[in-house]
Amino acid sequence: MALLNEDRLFPAEESTRAIARRLYEGIRALPIVSPHGHTQAEWFARNEPFPDPVTLFVHPDHYVFRMLYSQGISLEELEIGHRRIASPRRVWKIFASHYHLFRGTPTRLWLDFAFQELFGLTERLSADTADHYYDVIEARLATPEFLPRALYERFGIEVLSTTDSPLDALADHAAIRESGWKGRILPTFRPDAVVDPEFPDFQDNVRALGALTGEDTTTWRGYLRALEARREFFKGMGATATDHGHPTAQTEDLGDTSAASLFEQVIIGRAYAADLEIFRGQMLTEMARMSLDDGLVMQIHPGSVRNHNAQLFSRYGRDMGADIPQATGYVEALRPLLNRFGNEPGLSIILFTLDETAYSRELAPLAGHYPCLKLGPPWWFHDSPEGMRRFRETVTETAGFYNTVGFNDDTRAFLSIPARHDVARRMDAGFLARLVAEHRIDEDEAVELAQELTVGLVRKAYRL
Amino acid sequence: MALLNEDRLFPAEESTRAIARRLYEGIRALPIVSPHGHTQAEWFARNEPFPDPVTLFVHPDHYVFRMLYSQGISLEELEIGHRRIASPRRVWKIFASHYHLFRGTPTRLWLDFAFQELFGLTERLSADTADHYYDVIEARLATPEFLPRALYERFGIEVLSTTDSPLDALADHAAIRESGWKGRILPTFRPDAVVDPEFPDFQDNVRALGALTGEDTTTWRGYLRALEARREFFKGMGATATDHGHPTAQTEDLGDTSAASLFEQVIIGRAYAADLEIFRGQMLTEMARMSLDDGLVMQIHPGSVRNHNAQLFSRYGRDMGADIPQATGYVEALRPLLNRFGNEPGLSIILFTLDETAYSRELAPLAGHYPCLKLGPPWWFHDSPEGMRRFRETVTETAGFYNTVGFNDDTRAFLSIPARHDVARRMDAGFLARLVAEHRIDEDEAVELAQELTVGLVRKAYRL
Amino acid sequence: MALLNEDRLFPAEESTRAIARRLYEGIRALPIVSPHGHTQAEWFARNEPFPDPVTLFVHPDHYVFRMLYSQGISLEELEIGHRRIASPRRVWKIFASHYHLFRGTPTRLWLDFAFQELFGLTERLSADTADHYYDVIEARLATPEFLPRALYERFGIEVLSTTDSPLDALADHAAIRESGWKGRILPTFRPDAVVDPEFPDFQDNVRALGALTGEDTTTWRGYLRALEARREFFKGMGATATDHGHPTAQTEDLGDTSAASLFEQVIIGRAYAADLEIFRGQMLTEMARMSLDDGLVMQIHPGSVRNHNAQLFSRYGRDMGADIPQATGYVEALRPLLNRFGNEPGLSIILFTLDETAYSRELAPLAGHYPCLKLGPPWWFHDSPEGMRRFRETVTETAGFYNTVGFNDDTRAFLSIPARHDVARRMDAGFLARLVAEHRIDEDEAVELAQELTVGLVRKAYRL
Repeated sequence: MALLNEDRLFPAEESTRAIARRLYEGIRALPIVSPHGHTQAEWFARNEPFPDPVTLFVHPDHYVFRMLYSQGISLEELEIGHRRIASPRRVWKIFASHYHLFRGTPTRLWLDFAFQELFGLTERLSADTADHYYDVIEARLATPEFLPRALYERFGIEVLSTTDSPLDALADHAAIRESGWKGRILPTFRPDAVVDPEFPDFQDNVRALGALTGEDTTTWRGYLRALEARREFFKGMGATATDHGHPTAQTEDLGDTSAASLFEQVIIGRAYAADLEIFRGQMLTEMARMSLDDGLVMQIHPGSVRNHNAQLFSRYGRDMGADIPQATGYVEALRPLLNRFGNEPGLSIILFTLDETAYSRELAPLAGHYPCLKLGPPWWFHDSPEGMRRFRETVTETAGFYNTVGFNDDTRAFLSIPARHDVARRMDAGFLARLVAEHRIDEDEAVELAQELTVGLVRKAYRL
Repeated sequence: MALLNEDRLFPAEESTRAIARRLYEGIRALPIVSPHGHTQAEWFARNEPFPDPVTLFVHPDHYVFRMLYSQGISLEELEIGHRRIASPRRVWKIFASHYHLFRGTPTRLWLDFAFQELFGLTERLSADTADHYYDVIEARLATPEFLPRALYERFGIEVLSTTDSPLDALADHAAIRESGWKGRILPTFRPDAVVDPEFPDFQDNVRALGALTGEDTTTWRGYLRALEARREFFKGMGATATDHGHPTAQTEDLGDTSAASLFEQVIIGRAYAADLEIFRGQMLTEMARMSLDDGLVMQIHPGSVRNHNAQLFSRYGRDMGADIPQATGYVEALRPLLNRFGNEPGLSIILFTLDETAYSRELAPLAGHYPCLKLGPPWWFHDSPEGMRRFRETVTETAGFYNTVGFNDDTRAFLSIPARHDVARRMDAGFLARLVAEHRIDEDEAVELAQELTVGLVRKAYRL
Repeated sequence: MALLNEDRLFPAEESTRAIARRLYEGIRALPIVSPHGHTQAEWFARNEPFPDPVTLFVHPDHYVFRMLYSQGISLEELEIGHRRIASPRRVWKIFASHYHLFRGTPTRLWLDFAFQELFGLTERLSADTADHYYDVIEARLATPEFLPRALYERFGIEVLSTTDSPLDALADHAAIRESGWKGRILPTFRPDAVVDPEFPDFQDNVRALGALTGEDTTTWRGYLRALEARREFFKGMGATATDHGHPTAQTEDLGDTSAASLFEQVIIGRAYAADLEIFRGQMLTEMARMSLDDGLVMQIHPGSVRNHNAQLFSRYGRDMGADIPQATGYVEALRPLLNRFGNEPGLSIILFTLDETAYSRELAPLAGHYPCLKLGPPWWFHDSPEGMRRFRETVTETAGFYNTVGFNDDTRAFLSIPARHDVARRMDAGFLARLVAEHRIDEDEAVELAQELTVGLVRKAYRL
């Protein structure tokens, strides 16, 4: 009995499956390159055991608890937002009893992979097996093999990027470096907190940015210099990329005087709502300009309406599974930035989307033309077998494979990393196998492409 | 020779098809639960024979005559809008001669099913076989086995919901109850005629609503009480759900004073166009509030631009095949209602769409979070094999299966009901078979899911 | 060794592939009907040899050089925009060295077809084989078999339409007629230059239109008469269709007085930007009116944001691979035109889109109702195997096959014509085979449909 089948996710058609198996064999053991995600540097700095199954699998994973919530299980029952979990075994049992809800979802694939590959569990999780699971997982977590650094090595990770506020001193990243441990945990410069005027405590954040850099961030010049200084600091700590999570892909290219005067309104909280969007757009263009100087790769993750559930937000705060995608246009939105820097050979921008309609209509045509643009992998709700298939099917014919950048696991759930990369490798193997089976490429080309999609393109795109 | 193959609609790949066959065998004979559609209670109240093939298959089915119209056949030739059909055999022959137009459409599948399963016809419909078809169908319609109640039983229908105006006295539903016949024909409260100010004769309708309930519907309070009263009446007659066919999914949450003063403008015909949309949006929120009280499930069917063909509308009226979908946003549109009631455990809202781009971008993320939201099956133009496949492929990974509600036939064509449910069962069996063949779920899970998708989820979601 | 496999593009599943092979055998050798494209009448008028591989394969094909550009190869290196190519062999080598970029794209399929079928090349193009390719192609181009007229005949072309400005005297078309050569090279009336006020040199163009026709094109009446005259001239030269490449699908139906006064503002360059869009929309309706009189079929190709890369445009001009699609609505946009002429039996309008979301949501429902509307094949970025599959899968169930019009190659690259039609025939064979394998249509119907999709529907729709 097993949770995982060796042929999972491969196309069922026999000749195609045989090709997929061969392609997958060539990439299954390649190192994991993880250039974008939300794991905590602290784990690797402290290298302490993960406490219990709930803290490991349920609480950090909004994919998990949003599904439970949608079926009427309150966050209270799951003890989410509690300082200490009073009864982790009880919460685990609730989760286990509802494991059927995840049928057909990627969460199920990721969890089963971790259960079997890391914990040796082979019977399906359910109310009946909940206690057995709990005991096995809890016991293993206490062993040295399950400390964060040991797992990093066991997973075959080559590099792992975190996502960090510009106000973060990166003490954990520094501690890791100083520890002599060879793992590469790199920070990523994510300035939303100081460039998005609608971010909680924006003004305080900008003030703190000034304090941290010794710049006068009440002025446009000082503010820009402060950002440049923090980018430089991040770069010194190993960062190769920035990341930008704006509600839209809007960019602007105001003249310097207009930008300065807009900043003055924004920083004192006097700007209109529409101007806040313009300001965010201007800041993307400023970031592109800085990227040209310091060589950091830009990632743009637009289109999420954050905290859609007002009651949940007021009670539990951000990242509670209530962010919902919206329609996102790129063609007009990116024009100001592209008009200014679109043909610069040194610039590299990786675009993401939560709006799949943009793949074939906008993103593939843009990335298939502009030298600075590349397409990030399927993101968030689309980081799934069907989402990956749609991405390849709608993007490849116009942008080719070489304007894409490999896989991102983008996860807060450390133990899901190998599972997620495995899904991506299998789906890529299956997609390439179909192209071979339909005689659209030859198998030797597919072998080469499989390598590129797994390690080659990501190392190059993220300058790793 | 046969019109129907036992393996129709199953994936061609052998191992997947074998699984699909097994799954389908487990659900093919389950009762039909039909919680939303447009059949007439009158048929079952009177239980009189259907008159002729044209009245049965051509005139009530806008899927049929819109295709004929698109290829240059006038509604005049089809005698649509005539009080009595002068020459049904002639109309039938026109239809039969153009049967090739339906190749590749679901209409073809539905009709062939009815032709073979109900009338024993096994040669394809064409100009050559038109008379034979006409004779066979006409003869059978005259037999007791083809009376509405006999067909209801033969089809294995467990419950069949109609869609009714709040002004309807539900006399036919009452007559059915009083007749002692055991068939469950339930009304559905569809208040468009009295909550959409752009509905024909809106003001007269609201006046009639007042007359029917003894409430003063010229006041906001009286108007709301009258609606509550009619909902109560419908519930007493067996209704478990309401249905709302708005042009968009817009909701509003005006304060009571603003709502009352908007109503005053609307009811005297003095509101601006934009305010009419706000009023409709406010009424959705009011309906949600009433649902919390009386437990009726809300269905929202937004996004159809009705009566797009002005000439046709002025000559033939509504529902003439000239309703065209438009892009439909849900994220901002539903926010006011969800902010107010989105976390109420007692509320249940089933969302539909004619804009498939919303499946993966908005609807699955919303339904995979909010406890009150469920996703209705593919609707109207998307109630088709490919439409069902796209629905499952784009919705399941984020919302799972358990945030969906089974199948709706949504038909005006009574004889198409078993055919439509059969298509849905086959497509679900095929989709589940693919998940099994790709080792994404186990077959025992697929067996359980097939039951849920066929009868379990629909009974629960519609509180039947 | 071969570049092409006999089974390419057919579904891998064995029984489906066998059906696809049979269907394809029945259509592979049918004549090529090419009712829309961008080849040059001059080639056939002069019948001179194509000069070299770069001029043949790289420079005219923005699919090719946009991909190279996206990967950092400058247009300068490719000698694009040069009067004479200094070193075609060097440019060819750059292209050959980057041939892997085209893996998974239709460009690869088209090129391999031409390389093998026309030039007998069977080893993959690469840096290593670049010189061999160059030598073989250059040598063959010098032979009589590779003159344009010889190729036209060898390709089995029945008719080939060009796309022409209303200001074009069609001298090349006349020369072909007078030459006695039997090839049918027909002009298409594409009036963008004189109906789109944002087209370069619009006012001069309208003046030239006046000069050409002897009409006073400073007046609305004279302007319309001039357009009618040029349409009549084109029709006399064999044209059966017009073509309209507007940024959106917007139409208008201004009264005559308003239209005349809008024209007066437009023609002196005094209209607001929003009015220019209204003017274009009005001109579509005027064109529909003229089509009713002269019987020319209208093609509408909306939704391309032209010249998105401002730097490239200012240096190299139009059609440099920097046109990007945008979201395109049809339902409200076409309403004014359809309200006026939508039910006219004599009118025929073929709609195209770069926004695939419109297929199932808007275009199929519109074409499945209005007698004047037909759907053009997948266009531009969507003229690809996956694009064709998506088109059939999303359009057929609502609009059927008979509201579509067969294939357009729409190419500037003459040698790609047979390759492109071959891809379309294979994809249609594969799609029909799937319907047969899933028992949704019978094989005799698929045989008939394959003929229709290849030659029947296109001849009828374009009145050829």
